[in-house]
Amino acid sequence: MITGKNYVGSKLKAAGEKTFKTYNPQLDIENPWVFTEATQGEIEEAVTLAHQAFGTYKNCSGLEKADFLNAIADEVLALGDNLLVQYCSESGFPMGRAEGERGRMVGQLRSFAQMLAEGSWVQAAIDTAIPERVPAPKEDLRKMLVPLGPVVVFGSSNFPFAFSTAGGDTASALAAGCPVIVKSHSMHVGTGEMVASAILKAAQKTNMPEGVFSNLVGGGTTLGTSLVKHPLVKAVGFTGSIRAGRALFDLAAQRPEPIPVFAEMGSVNPVVFLPKALAMNSQKWATAYAGSITLGAGQFCTNPGLLIGIKGAELNKFAEELAKAIEKIEPFCMLHPSMKNSFEEGTSTMMAQKGVSKIAEYQGGAPANYGVQKILTVDGKTFLENKRLSHEVFGPFSILVQCDDEEQLLRIINQLDGQLTGTIIGEPNELKQYNKLIAAMQNRVGRLIFNGVPTGVEVCPAMIHGGPYPASSDSRFTAVGIHAVNRWVRPFSYQNWPNELLPAELQNENPLQILRTLNNIQTKSQVK
Amino acid sequence: MITGKNYVGSKLKAAGEKTFKTYNPQLDIENPWVFTEATQGEIEEAVTLAHQAFGTYKNCSGLEKADFLNAIADEVLALGDNLLVQYCSESGFPMGRAEGERGRMVGQLRSFAQMLAEGSWVQAAIDTAIPERVPAPKEDLRKMLVPLGPVVVFGSSNFPFAFSTAGGDTASALAAGCPVIVKSHSMHVGTGEMVASAILKAAQKTNMPEGVFSNLVGGGTTLGTSLVKHPLVKAVGFTGSIRAGRALFDLAAQRPEPIPVFAEMGSVNPVVFLPKALAMNSQKWATAYAGSITLGAGQFCTNPGLLIGIKGAELNKFAEELAKAIEKIEPFCMLHPSMKNSFEEGTSTMMAQKGVSKIAEYQGGAPANYGVQKILTVDGKTFLENKRLSHEVFGPFSILVQCDDEEQLLRIINQLDGQLTGTIIGEPNELKQYNKLIAAMQNRVGRLIFNGVPTGVEVCPAMIHGGPYPASSDSRFTAVGIHAVNRWVRPFSYQNWPNELLPAELQNENPLQILRTLNNIQTKSQVK
Repeated sequence: MITGKNYVGSKLKAAGEKTFKTYNPQLDIENPWVFTEATQGEIEEAVTLAHQAFGTYKNCSGLEKADFLNAIADEVLALGDNLLVQYCSESGFPMGRAEGERGRMVGQLRSFAQMLAEGSWVQAAIDTAIPERVPAPKEDLRKMLVPLGPVVVFGSSNFPFAFSTAGGDTASALAAGCPVIVKSHSMHVGTGEMVASAILKAAQKTNMPEGVFSNLVGGGTTLGTSLVKHPLVKAVGFTGSIRAGRALFDLAAQRPEPIPVFAEMGSVNPVVFLPKALAMNSQKWATAYAGSITLGAGQFCTNPGLLIGIKGAELNKFAEELAKAIEKIEPFCMLHPSMKNSFEEGTSTMMAQKGVSKIAEYQGGAPANYGVQKILTVDGKTFLENKRLSHEVFGPFSILVQCDDEEQLLRIINQLDGQLTGTIIGEPNELKQYNKLIAAMQNRVGRLIFNGVPTGVEVCPAMIHGGPYPASSDSRFTAVGIHAVNRWVRPFSYQNWPNELLPAELQNENPLQILRTLNNIQTKSQVK
Repeated sequence: MITGKNYVGSKLKAAGEKTFKTYNPQLDIENPWVFTEATQGEIEEAVTLAHQAFGTYKNCSGLEKADFLNAIADEVLALGDNLLVQYCSESGFPMGRAEGERGRMVGQLRSFAQMLAEGSWVQAAIDTAIPERVPAPKEDLRKMLVPLGPVVVFGSSNFPFAFSTAGGDTASALAAGCPVIVKSHSMHVGTGEMVASAILKAAQKTNMPEGVFSNLVGGGTTLGTSLVKHPLVKAVGFTGSIRAGRALFDLAAQRPEPIPVFAEMGSVNPVVFLPKALAMNSQKWATAYAGSITLGAGQFCTNPGLLIGIKGAELNKFAEELAKAIEKIEPFCMLHPSMKNSFEEGTSTMMAQKGVSKIAEYQGGAPANYGVQKILTVDGKTFLENKRLSHEVFGPFSILVQCDDEEQLLRIINQLDGQLTGTIIGEPNELKQYNKLIAAMQNRVGRLIFNGVPTGVEVCPAMIHGGPYPASSDSRFTAVGIHAVNRWVRPFSYQNWPNELLPAELQNENPLQILRTLNNIQTKSQVK
């Protein structure tokens, strides 16, 4: 079933000589399939095909694109359990996670299909002419969103389904009308190939142009670099580390024609525990956070890596209860031996910092690639003086910062890098007295949570998954929810254009019955 | 009336030693006022004040910000004719233009005020909780747009009112909730000071925080560079040359925390004349384009600098008529001797290119700083082979490219850099046969015009003033119209947040009666 080849458009190709294999971290053995890295010729061909496909694909109607996305969802499901087994063998995740994440991937595809079928997402705006206006007549102007062109999507390590081959970036770019070239993540490139085969089957069934999707394989940075620098590529989607995301951002900014990169990068997702909440519900929050920190071996962008409280009996009690809860949870398998190594290195580096001590660690034995969860602690002053303590350790890890007072806590929040999320655990009547703290947190994050955990990113219009740099490379966009499509489109105006030659979205008759801004009023009315 | 000092917040300061003067190009003499460049200390103070002001200003209600913007409009008008005279003496523009552009500036301020008062621009989206959902409950999520932080605005040379101190960038950033620091354009820094005084008077009258606006003076690149690199600055707006815009874009991208730069840069605004239209209305289009090319001495971003047609009797006739019309128009004064020099150099360089010949030039005499309009011509093959011929010459200049056939015309369009506008002059029944040409043009521009001229940028929601690079640094935004506000905001989510502590825009009761996306439906309804 796995060929190990690249999909250059719908054709399987493997002219290259460099090969590699994936790894089963659960079994601690190399997987059998051999993958061949894309050659420069194959890269060139995939981008050229995408460019050619753009000419046709951008003119597909919303319904045609919706059919394509729904067909991808259908074809992914048609791969059945084989796909889930492949996913597990290349990620170490259990079957339940595989099934859940497949549901998320399919749900995302269908929600973009729904958005396309409804049609109002193009933000059509019409200002009709006023020929009699003085001193100059007003011309007819009509605006809508149009796609940017071919988009390169980098598969993520930690979401082989939901943020990889047919994940949120691909689904939103295809919804926008942009052909997609995926750089498959090397850890689960077999899973990627299977999902790619489903996308291409769907493309064929719904008569999409050749080149609307390609799936390329590469082990190092050559493939990614070549794609981002290619003049026919018009935007980039990425989920991963700050180091890799920033490198791609820099490459794109240095092009003769700079292009937008949406990179969703690191985050430690600070959580502030207010005293009253701990006094009343210490046990509840300790249990909830032990679960959130260890969920999926802590391999989530929204993993809570930084817990902050004010010194006192409440915080001591919470620390004890968190330690107890953490020590009870069985460790999980990590994605790859290299992830486990990075995690071990990261926690060791943290432990070696001045003033840091351990408050909890799972004590039982664990198989080779399992991430053994750890909680460290440090006082507020030390944390403020050592920037390294605010860096992310990817895996089941968190550091509890014990502040002297509210003022120190506020300084810590103000000094943080940008984050995907920030959480306040408090009693409702406690929040008002911490308004400065909340305002500071709001400046640093994309999503502010009250009495909950940051893990679990709902796919819905009101979700924002992004945030100030380096949580993302551009805080003005989200990677989750239908508004993720805005990353891949630009507004475009027609002036005085003949009605019958306008796209349906902008015609007088409003044939698609979409919501439009007509002379400053939101309406589905026709232009009279 | 003119102090020559910097407004650091509301305080006039001039601790520096470097000074310069502005120039009256119409009278061909230096103006009397002496301006003192901002010191590093003054820059630091202005940015710090803006950062502090942000904490208060971002929480101002839409109505409070609307009052501020309307007050700016009122105070600008209260400056009366003195402001218009100042404008003319620093730009060489006639009084009619001064008055018209002031109207545009005031109109922009009021249209953003109207947007704020109505309130729906924040794109509020609410997804209510589903506590009983399995396997996991759905949390309540509420999203709206929030401001990025202090914005630096670079005044443009060619719009001392509409794209400078209180122009579109400033108005949209203040509407977003971002404090603004203007780097006043050195050619009309006296006009800038007067407008800044109006903004600060308005700020005082409407109780805006100190630092919500500063106006700094600088002659070279030091001031701009310091501002763009400052860690507390969160976004940049710019209108000007590709060279300067790209330099600022690069600086911003290289920061430890990269920030968005919206730079509206060069454009030659290609115009394609189809044969039937020329056969039927050659005279009409020659007159219209002679007017558009010379309007305001050609000093518009949307000046039509590139005219393209297919060789034949129709195009010859059009060239003759354009030449006649061009030669009849009296030249206009340019903004500054340096503009006039650049224009002369630009046209000389063009004339010196192989295969280029002149078809029209105004023959009468003209005062010192007047831009004497020129039309050159070249054949399609030569144009394709010489990239320099597609560069912008800022001023009353255009080049007519005579193509062998439609295929060559199409290649020219495909090869063009990104443009603000593209125009097709044709008969309605002629357009369908040129669908490839139209599709190609659409890929290269932000606004596509049928049977009109690109000059005259209407301020309305359906306008897009921007386009693929280098027309702008990010084609996903517009510099004109209320959606210009989107450059300075980011989406922000509240999860499970207590209703009474939410911003009014997101509260259950919808107290502002704005249009919101409630569980995927656009509505003004309350959350039940």
